Amino acid sequence: MVIAVVRYGKDERRKILEAELSKHPFFTDEELALRFRVSVSTIRLDRGVLGIPELRERTRAVAQEAYSTLKSLDDQEVIGELQELIIGERARSTMIIEETMVLAKARVARGHYLFAQANSLAIALVDAPMALTGSVELKFIRPVQLGEVVVAEGKVTKRKGDKYWVDVLLQANTEAVLRGHWVLFAKERGEVRETEME
Amino acid sequence: MVIAVVRYGKDERRKILEAELSKHPFFTDEELALRFRVSVSTIRLDRGVLGIPELRERTRAVAQEAYSTLKSLDDQEVIGELQELIIGERARSTMIIEETMVLAKARVARGHYLFAQANSLAIALVDAPMALTGSVELKFIRPVQLGEVVVAEGKVTKRKGDKYWVDVLLQANTEAVLRGHWVLFAKERGEVRETEME
Repeated sequence: MVIAVVRYGKDERRKILEAELSKHPFFTDEELALRFRVSVSTIRLDRGVLGIPELRERTRAVAQEAYSTLKSLDDQEVIGELQELIIGERARSTMIIEETMVLAKARVARGHYLFAQANSLAIALVDAPMALTGSVELKFIRPVQLGEVVVAEGKVTKRKGDKYWVDVLLQANTEAVLRGHWVLFAKERGEVRETEME
Repeated sequence: MVIAVVRYGKDERRKILEAELSKHPFFTDEELALRFRVSVSTIRLDRGVLGIPELRERTRAVAQEAYSTLKSLDDQEVIGELQELIIGERARSTMIIEETMVLAKARVARGHYLFAQANSLAIALVDAPMALTGSVELKFIRPVQLGEVVVAEGKVTKRKGDKYWVDVLLQANTEAVLRGHWVLFAKERGEVRETEME
């Protein structure tokens, strides 16, 4: 998204707002207010005029189909909200950082919430009734603040038998916050108790 | 712990039980019953005779001192139960895998609970009011079953200015389940919002 360095007129702002939200539907009103240098209530009014629902409804609307595709996880086992899932290919989820997810002192999202979002997305990509994480390389790029929306995108980069390689990128406000490479193992039902991972 | 291939007599069993629990205080009664080839109620009786409290009390007793040492996290921010903490050196925590932590289908602990235990232990080791995870390399070695106790051990292997290298090993039933290498950054209070991690 282009950062607005000047304040737009009302009509122009609404036109740009509509275009941007169709490309990046996961901006919060607060993020949009900052970017357009207007108040949050102005953004809400703009959305009302344009007929664009609030963030939670926008994400819910696209999620229905993705959830019906799930195979290796149950609906409530996806951490965050699943937006898109093409098993064996790519997936996307969003997660709003809430009060319970931040460190008391630093006020930034705890690492394991970000890991949980990314890890469950990686597992969802495996085409099997179950999947287990084998190894992960993670890089935390910048802290995520309370109220930010984290968009996770996962991509299967390679597959060999029951072994999957998945890259996951987490972004907040279109900036990278976490990158990771996963190696996962597809498992048939009942296979887990006996098998040790390599 | 030596696996009992023969059944011991009562007195001998109690002697070995006492010695083993003083070395490895985090075995559950179920694990002990399996290892000594007796029933869980026999183990409970043995503990009663020996004056050894149940697992939760054993872990609580050693935890008091460790919690008072915490600096970079609040008490409730440590995932699992902190057992030992020498900031800048080494730390240990335990976590019992409960129903809410396992995957519905596979019945094994979800990866992000194990990550959370390990990550919070790594953060607790940093000698600063706050700490952030920079990068992590993880290897999941075997799945952890419902009811198992995960013992995490963290060790600072190197330190350079505000940068810490920490190794964490998670074990269940004395078997390695997860190994990881962490790079973390010590932060002063208020420094987090402006700073991006390297």
